[in-house]
Amino acid sequence: MAAPILADSVRLADDGVHILDRRVFPFERVWVHCRTVEEVAKAIEDMVTQSSGPYFAALWGMVLAARAAADLPADEARAALAAAGDRLIASRSTNNHLGKAVRAVLSEVDSSDGDLVEAALRGARAGDELYRSRSRALGEYTVDLLPDGARVLTHCWADLYLTETVAAAQRRGKELSFFCTETRPYLQGARLTAETLAEMGVPTTLVTDGMGASLFSQGLVDALVTAADRVSMDGHVVNKIGTLGLAVAAKAFGVPFHAQVQAPDLAAPTAADVPIEYRDGDEVLHTLGRRTASTRVPGLYPAFDVTPPEFVTTVVTDRGALAPDQLRRYYEQEKT
Amino acid sequence: MAAPILADSVRLADDGVHILDRRVFPFERVWVHCRTVEEVAKAIEDMVTQSSGPYFAALWGMVLAARAAADLPADEARAALAAAGDRLIASRSTNNHLGKAVRAVLSEVDSSDGDLVEAALRGARAGDELYRSRSRALGEYTVDLLPDGARVLTHCWADLYLTETVAAAQRRGKELSFFCTETRPYLQGARLTAETLAEMGVPTTLVTDGMGASLFSQGLVDALVTAADRVSMDGHVVNKIGTLGLAVAAKAFGVPFHAQVQAPDLAAPTAADVPIEYRDGDEVLHTLGRRTASTRVPGLYPAFDVTPPEFVTTVVTDRGALAPDQLRRYYEQEKT
Repeated sequence: MAAPILADSVRLADDGVHILDRRVFPFERVWVHCRTVEEVAKAIEDMVTQSSGPYFAALWGMVLAARAAADLPADEARAALAAAGDRLIASRSTNNHLGKAVRAVLSEVDSSDGDLVEAALRGARAGDELYRSRSRALGEYTVDLLPDGARVLTHCWADLYLTETVAAAQRRGKELSFFCTETRPYLQGARLTAETLAEMGVPTTLVTDGMGASLFSQGLVDALVTAADRVSMDGHVVNKIGTLGLAVAAKAFGVPFHAQVQAPDLAAPTAADVPIEYRDGDEVLHTLGRRTASTRVPGLYPAFDVTPPEFVTTVVTDRGALAPDQLRRYYEQEKT
Repeated sequence: MAAPILADSVRLADDGVHILDRRVFPFERVWVHCRTVEEVAKAIEDMVTQSSGPYFAALWGMVLAARAAADLPADEARAALAAAGDRLIASRSTNNHLGKAVRAVLSEVDSSDGDLVEAALRGARAGDELYRSRSRALGEYTVDLLPDGARVLTHCWADLYLTETVAAAQRRGKELSFFCTETRPYLQGARLTAETLAEMGVPTTLVTDGMGASLFSQGLVDALVTAADRVSMDGHVVNKIGTLGLAVAAKAFGVPFHAQVQAPDLAAPTAADVPIEYRDGDEVLHTLGRRTASTRVPGLYPAFDVTPPEFVTTVVTDRGALAPDQLRRYYEQEKT
């Protein structure tokens, strides 16, 4: 099974970085061509890519910056790379991934005496592989929790966590089938998740965001599995709006909820430490740019919700599955 | 406060019945002109109107049938009226309201010796007033349950139950504000509920179907209030898909759920007696006729879900508010 296109949707080439435009996917498969790090930053700002996409875009964007700085004196080149990194990080202020990508490249550059572009490329490749290997480990641990034949409900778009979960199941000969929610207002589920699961050959059925409880109550779902944007150390799961309602209903009808995150967030002891982003309420009034609601009311769009640990069965990390009240163990297992 | 347009959206005139087209409301305010009972039946079939709309359309459609039969011999006229009623009832097979409307007109015709059209008109008017007065009573009992300043979350489109609840609150000087869900896939909430609440001057905010639990968990909602399509005698609430998830979340976060229905259904001792309609799954893949999902997956569209009585606080009827395990009392209070 080849990787689905969204798992390889930010690509470095000789002429720049090519980013698959998720705003129109899957209706059109358009690649945005970024010739400079500024164009990469702009593409991230313009939401050409999202979820893990900006991380990869920042990695390869730093390689473009290194190429552009290759002929400068060493200190000017390093300053140019730092400026490029700042520009990329500023392109989406709440995305922690961007800083990680920039640091992956800069640390390799700083520890290298050789060719700047080669060093940046090594750093970017290492950053790419690190993210993929952590997602792969997390996918393997998730599949451990799912019985053969499991019917999984997922919400929004779990990106590499999802594709690596499916890939792990396929390697191990476990059959999975999915329900996915459409995930209003951006329709990540209807567009990204549904298309990608179908591309991977997984039986998938689309439902609206209000149908999960009905599926649970009828015994049609064996597990609720979603990514988490953040998990606080006391087990609160911050994820796309709608996750909370699904988690509460899953518990009410005896369905386990497994939340996937590479690592719980040491900087967030509890949910109060995670600010919830409110996006433009107009999004709720529109669907793919077209007005779909009365023009006489405002919309409200909290982008995330917070699921308390009593509604979370398992937090699946790249170091294994943990109960939500056992997340300290993630760091006790710290490798040295 | 004048009645909102959707509360008076099926009108009898000299030239026929005029039905506001809910398929394009509120983006366009188009009235479909039905000159004959056949055109009324066709309009019902084509979903020009829904919810309580078909009931009113059937009442006035029977008046058109009486006009057309006015010059026939009495027995032929009565047979024509019966045929018209059968045609109307067949226009939407799962709608109990249509039979009630037809019987309201026929019983008045059968008990009258006078002019056929006058008798039909009296029957239709009585049927109209009965439905409105029952909804008005139910609205009054609902407002009894809501504190002044209550922030109400409603789902889908509760039609006259909603408008009469708001009207009762306004008569009594109680301030209400609403969140309403958009109600995918048909967007009844975004189109009908949001527009109508705004028209009535009620502060209203639109949310997607997945946002309710987050609002409850943050203490932003004082009551969940929805209509019910059917309530079984043991307190199961059958309503638009999505109600169950909201009800479960409401209970988890201590928010009461009041379900409105004129009367519990004696023909349905429990939920198993209510067949759940599955509509075309393609609806989930589209929004207002436009494709909004991957073309590689099917959609699933159970039109209703079933909320068990443990998640229902109150069933509000036209004879008062009852606990879901006390619904027999509705019929013990039967007026004679």
